[in-house]
Amino acid sequence: MGKHVECPKDVVFRPIGIIHSALKKKEETPIQPVYARGIKGSVEIFDEYTDGLHDLEGFSHIYLLYHFHKAGDVRLVVRPFVDDMPRGVFATRAPCRPNPIGVSLVRLNQIRGDILDIEDIDVLDGTPLLDIKPYISRFDSRDSVRCGWQENVDEETAKLRGRRNFLEEISKT
Amino acid sequence: MGKHVECPKDVVFRPIGIIHSALKKKEETPIQPVYARGIKGSVEIFDEYTDGLHDLEGFSHIYLLYHFHKAGDVRLVVRPFVDDMPRGVFATRAPCRPNPIGVSLVRLNQIRGDILDIEDIDVLDGTPLLDIKPYISRFDSRDSVRCGWQENVDEETAKLRGRRNFLEEISKT
Repeated sequence: MGKHVECPKDVVFRPIGIIHSALKKKEETPIQPVYARGIKGSVEIFDEYTDGLHDLEGFSHIYLLYHFHKAGDVRLVVRPFVDDMPRGVFATRAPCRPNPIGVSLVRLNQIRGDILDIEDIDVLDGTPLLDIKPYISRFDSRDSVRCGWQENVDEETAKLRGRRNFLEEISKT
Repeated sequence: MGKHVECPKDVVFRPIGIIHSALKKKEETPIQPVYARGIKGSVEIFDEYTDGLHDLEGFSHIYLLYHFHKAGDVRLVVRPFVDDMPRGVFATRAPCRPNPIGVSLVRLNQIRGDILDIEDIDVLDGTPLLDIKPYISRFDSRDSVRCGWQENVDEETAKLRGRRNFLEEISKT
């Protein structure tokens, strides 16, 4: 292993809810919330956790942390959706990560008891939810950043391929 | 439980590395990277995962996802560090969450083999790392957001208490 003295233990997480969406197929699921604008969905929180939802409705945007339960085998080198070059998986947002944890920054429209109505959702229907965190501007935005290989992908290409209707669009031309 | 048909299974994650920092005590650990400016640290990636680091160095900022291994008992209602009112835990970034997963957006200075030199680190020394994702501006920033109760905490208070030297500062006055 590495130079660490103690090898850390495995960690067990228990889903706190389920994400529901109209996205039923991996292949048709947008790769990021920015390419899923207007797609609505909901999050069902299991009863034992609903007390943790107080005060959340004041936030317009929330992070959903979830298990990429359909990610398949781990690959350390992947071809990203928006590019054709192989990249290290940690330099991408691909699901086939050693620990398949997804993070999506979505719009929170309202909370009805144990149901969160959300929008801009890029998550497959039935995905197990692990955590919710509020998006807080002063914590979560950065200026003057460098974005590596992503800077060489132009916005139009990213949008077209990020929506995952790339092949469909191509077939129409 | 809830209205879901199938109860999702527990998820087991295996740490991919260890976060090293000068922060040895929970009580002295800043609550967010924005309150940890200039604090340097490193991330050690276990040998079997280093192939996933290719192309990461082009990114100036990365998300570290990690296990809050010292979080203690779960509390669904907490008093946030920067405020005195009890809040639902999902409307805060407190560690005592049902699934104690931390997310920190840190500066990546360089990569030396299996070691990432990082800065603006608000993570306790020895914390098990679960995942790394690149910060990509077009995916990860949002304008026109509402930030709930956080909007009522003024910047100076947040900074003072967020650095966790609140009591120390008070004792000097």
